[in-house]
Amino acid sequence: MTGTDFLVTFTPSGRRGTVAGGRSVLDVARELGADIDSVCGGRSICGRCQVTIGSAPGVPASAELLTPPGPTELDYRGKRPLAADHRLACAAQVRGDVVIDVPPQSQVHRQVVRKRAEVIDIDVDPVVRLYYVEVAPPNLDDASSDLGRILAALEEQWGLGSLTADSAVLPVLQAALRKGDWNVTVAVHDGGVVTGVWPGFRDVALGVAYDVGSTTVAAHLCDLTSGDILASAGAMNPQIRFGEDLMSRVSYVMMNPGGEERLAAAIRQTMDELIGELVEQADVARDDILEVTVVGNPIMHHLVLGIDPTPLGTAPFALAVDGAVRGRVAEIGLDVHPGARLYLLPCIAGHVGADAAGAVLSEGPHRREAVQLLVDVGTNAEIVLGSSGRLLAASSPTGPAFEGAQISSGQRAAPGAIERVRIDRTTLEPRFRVIGSDLWSDDDGFAESIAATGVTGICGSGIIEVVAELYLAGVISQDGIIGGDHERVVADGRTNSYVLKGGSPPVLVTQNDVRAIQLAKAALYAGIKLLMEHLGVDAVDEIRLAGAFGSHIDTKYAMVLGLIPDCDLSQVSAAGNAAGTGSMMALLSWEARREIEQVASEIEKIETATEPEFQDLFVSAMGIPNSTDRFPQLASVVTLPAAQPASARPERRRRRVSQKGSAGD
Amino acid sequence: MTGTDFLVTFTPSGRRGTVAGGRSVLDVARELGADIDSVCGGRSICGRCQVTIGSAPGVPASAELLTPPGPTELDYRGKRPLAADHRLACAAQVRGDVVIDVPPQSQVHRQVVRKRAEVIDIDVDPVVRLYYVEVAPPNLDDASSDLGRILAALEEQWGLGSLTADSAVLPVLQAALRKGDWNVTVAVHDGGVVTGVWPGFRDVALGVAYDVGSTTVAAHLCDLTSGDILASAGAMNPQIRFGEDLMSRVSYVMMNPGGEERLAAAIRQTMDELIGELVEQADVARDDILEVTVVGNPIMHHLVLGIDPTPLGTAPFALAVDGAVRGRVAEIGLDVHPGARLYLLPCIAGHVGADAAGAVLSEGPHRREAVQLLVDVGTNAEIVLGSSGRLLAASSPTGPAFEGAQISSGQRAAPGAIERVRIDRTTLEPRFRVIGSDLWSDDDGFAESIAATGVTGICGSGIIEVVAELYLAGVISQDGIIGGDHERVVADGRTNSYVLKGGSPPVLVTQNDVRAIQLAKAALYAGIKLLMEHLGVDAVDEIRLAGAFGSHIDTKYAMVLGLIPDCDLSQVSAAGNAAGTGSMMALLSWEARREIEQVASEIEKIETATEPEFQDLFVSAMGIPNSTDRFPQLASVVTLPAAQPASARPERRRRRVSQKGSAGD
Repeated sequence: MTGTDFLVTFTPSGRRGTVAGGRSVLDVARELGADIDSVCGGRSICGRCQVTIGSAPGVPASAELLTPPGPTELDYRGKRPLAADHRLACAAQVRGDVVIDVPPQSQVHRQVVRKRAEVIDIDVDPVVRLYYVEVAPPNLDDASSDLGRILAALEEQWGLGSLTADSAVLPVLQAALRKGDWNVTVAVHDGGVVTGVWPGFRDVALGVAYDVGSTTVAAHLCDLTSGDILASAGAMNPQIRFGEDLMSRVSYVMMNPGGEERLAAAIRQTMDELIGELVEQADVARDDILEVTVVGNPIMHHLVLGIDPTPLGTAPFALAVDGAVRGRVAEIGLDVHPGARLYLLPCIAGHVGADAAGAVLSEGPHRREAVQLLVDVGTNAEIVLGSSGRLLAASSPTGPAFEGAQISSGQRAAPGAIERVRIDRTTLEPRFRVIGSDLWSDDDGFAESIAATGVTGICGSGIIEVVAELYLAGVISQDGIIGGDHERVVADGRTNSYVLKGGSPPVLVTQNDVRAIQLAKAALYAGIKLLMEHLGVDAVDEIRLAGAFGSHIDTKYAMVLGLIPDCDLSQVSAAGNAAGTGSMMALLSWEARREIEQVASEIEKIETATEPEFQDLFVSAMGIPNSTDRFPQLASVVTLPAAQPASARPERRRRRVSQKGSAGD
Repeated sequence: MTGTDFLVTFTPSGRRGTVAGGRSVLDVARELGADIDSVCGGRSICGRCQVTIGSAPGVPASAELLTPPGPTELDYRGKRPLAADHRLACAAQVRGDVVIDVPPQSQVHRQVVRKRAEVIDIDVDPVVRLYYVEVAPPNLDDASSDLGRILAALEEQWGLGSLTADSAVLPVLQAALRKGDWNVTVAVHDGGVVTGVWPGFRDVALGVAYDVGSTTVAAHLCDLTSGDILASAGAMNPQIRFGEDLMSRVSYVMMNPGGEERLAAAIRQTMDELIGELVEQADVARDDILEVTVVGNPIMHHLVLGIDPTPLGTAPFALAVDGAVRGRVAEIGLDVHPGARLYLLPCIAGHVGADAAGAVLSEGPHRREAVQLLVDVGTNAEIVLGSSGRLLAASSPTGPAFEGAQISSGQRAAPGAIERVRIDRTTLEPRFRVIGSDLWSDDDGFAESIAATGVTGICGSGIIEVVAELYLAGVISQDGIIGGDHERVVADGRTNSYVLKGGSPPVLVTQNDVRAIQLAKAALYAGIKLLMEHLGVDAVDEIRLAGAFGSHIDTKYAMVLGLIPDCDLSQVSAAGNAAGTGSMMALLSWEARREIEQVASEIEKIETATEPEFQDLFVSAMGIPNSTDRFPQLASVVTLPAAQPASARPERRRRRVSQKGSAGD
């Protein structure tokens, strides 16, 4: 060590080493492996390498430890202004033992806390990165090609070897080089392929994360570097015109040869229209979009890829492909940058799709000690249970009752639908709320507030609540029988119906409606119990309800009805759009892709249809649970009606539960 | 070693080893590394593994050394009938010390001698191979996907690990598996990517090799397994409507923004139409085509890829990309199998394109001890010189005179064009032949034989011959001056013209025509000499003239005029469509691709435009050589006129030779 060597320490990484004085902080960081971002490669253009002088025991902070700002820094007017006390790591040189603090926004692998959409930490670790390079001009004595000189510059200036170029960039690189006076910014995907070339310095790399649901499609436009969400948009899934639920779309394909191509074209067109909305909202160009990720249930996943989904409609429910699918976005017809890459998260099993994989990625049961139950309820319930030690997944054939289908007054969650219900324990009179109004039906002004739609029916969360409230009010027995002899109850042949709202047409809760909910909740509960038995646990530590259904139901009523197992209610919560968040994580992080591919391949798949126990669990889950038996936690939340004698139970019809005719989310 | 072990020897590979009796010959071959083909994987379906019993000193041939044919072989009625004495290696079992002869058609790496097109040996070493696999059916207890089970079967049954699937096969694999009752044939490209899946056993894998010239486009349909050419087709390059020669097409793009897209669309459409012709000729399907290769001069190469060729039109003539380009055939819009892959051979330098690389691959100067000169003459001459030790390449700006352009009566080689000329040494009367007729102009019936076209002009080979004949007859001096005072010579201002054919309009050879040929041949010769000086040789051992021009000119006249250096005339020959043959080799052989990529990167590129010596070589090559100075070999072939005094030489105008405005073939 000579007199001009200094000890440099980087925080928060803790990297440190002794280096010769006079070297730039960025240089030293690279040598010591400290994470400092740079797109321009140390040319004081991009402003990403800003650092501050920190301190450590025995090493006080002092501006003297770096060379003073020269004209480059003093005059720096780049896109990312130089904050007070901030230095450009590429310009400041070491001249003393110094602690350098690298703020999060100057790290390549930074952590972003979502502000909009879901609140979740995402490690930004972009799959595509931008590199600014100064390329040698062509010259008569050197026959190397434009691409050859770009690749040589990437190797020399960034240490990136063994790169290849996507054929889509070949037609643009000449013009970019000439327009940029031989300086270009290059997008490198996955450390291996050049997917874009632009003239001069450029700092824009965007991506779109899709969540393709059977009813709605959501898309988020993200800055791949900062992780910021620039815009979000949603649309109805246009495949609805081919069939309201998943199985009717599968039937459409079965009956219409080539139907999968029509369904694929429809969803792809909507996905492309959403890009139009996103770029307009954010005032960016389609060409700025370099990455696209997609999650969806297995049928949506297959249809986005143009794969016939009919094998998913019948046992043994074989997926065409289950691993992550990589391709070019152009292959699914979206108009974005021609080199843009497509990534579909892996599917876990025939009915546990890339949407469940996205939810696992964002909820992270495999990253926790506690046993988590993650449920996404749709036409099928996708169930994941476990912890860091072991993870299991299954789907259960709940059918569409929870979505308002197969319910006499049922409808999709849309303005006019009853979504909240309370029933007076004494008078048995109901009050309710309707989507589109903040008032209860017995509030002043309610009728005016819903004048536009009226009351059109009852949606999934409404039907859960009304059945639970009817049970709590003693109208429905533990076996699900609607009792008689009240003015709100009308007889219809051998069964009764509860009049939730009079008028014409009325909104009734029929005995068949209650049966449909019982069947659905029994299937869900049996699936969960089956996984609990496989995992060998009697209780779960946490329950997360993903998706729109999970966001809208009141977890208390879900537990009253026995949709979910007994659990401290404070530990039951909605996971929001967990699948979409997972799609965004895969968009922003290479490591997230690696993680979910690993986890998806390791999850144990339990097939409910072939588990003999499932039938028994299903039958015993038909009744509504009582605090005295399976749900001790409930006692603190609601007052349950007294248990009824077993003789009052209805005949136990063994319904054959098969997954035939059901699939997806 | 026990009593049931036997010594098995394979010919011609020489692989041998001691193995337990009772094992199949195919099994043993795999263990010992002997090359025996099989698509069905030893299931007695494909018939590719046919072998015969051979002999060696001490090991006489005897049918007893293998188990006798069982019902499988006796009843074998596959696509490749079992020849007499042939055995299926997968069925016959070893029961003695035996020599197994593997005939060429049963080897994976077989050598094919071309029957049609060019006669050349090609090692067939397919880039795409077919594998028959028996895939496990899906089952409720195993959630693995169709693709997952196919990949598992490929690993288990063929030892192929780490495969991925092209996204284009995802939509077809379900149907293939189900139609094939879980048995499918899989195409694996380059040992890494599944590019096709078909139901059951399949034995068809085809490819198309293109040679995209500026005037014509040729395509050959090949069986990728046997190497057989199944069909050939050609068409005019439709870009001619945008400009007859290369430079006028480059000008079109310069003047019309986006013009490269129109030129690309035109050539791609013609390439696609050729596929239509090929599959009709061979009675196969477009979907059978799994590989496509392309050669072309740099401008054609760029336009096929949709790359703007204008940088190739001005110094420093920078290629956008020079290495081999790999992509999907779909990217250039050809309607073939959706998983089909595209391969463009590398370009060597700005004016030495993938066509020259193809010619190098097929001619193989780098594989020889002798010094070979390989010349492809077009608007630019592409010149390659050297041997296994060292290879050099350059292009020389010959201009289009050799193609009949810039010649007063010049035209493309087409019916009606004069292609052969003889001039009586005494009377100076000419006779000639015309494309479309087998008769000479002084034969009986000549006029009738060309009635359809008449005599329309003179093509490249005709102009070479007439100038050489005029020189040999003493009409033209060594300096290129047309002498006067003969009824066949007419004066036109200060210069003379020779009347090759009277009538209206006449076919004249003007002084300017002779000058244009002198300039062209001087450029070619100077380029060759420059490479010879760089290589340090005074003479070459062999000269190969590639392309249409090389096939049509009489090499004797080429040497009389001094287009090519002095060489034993028996060693000067036409290489035919060497570039197209190279395209075919790259289609049929993985090793050929590796070879040309290696060679192209190692060839030394000489840029004539910046070599000061080139100007001097050019000027001194303007005169027509005399046997007494540079061309001793000529004396044995023709009688040369006496040398003229130096004073008769015309003024030596130094023409600035620049490659501006010239490019490609």
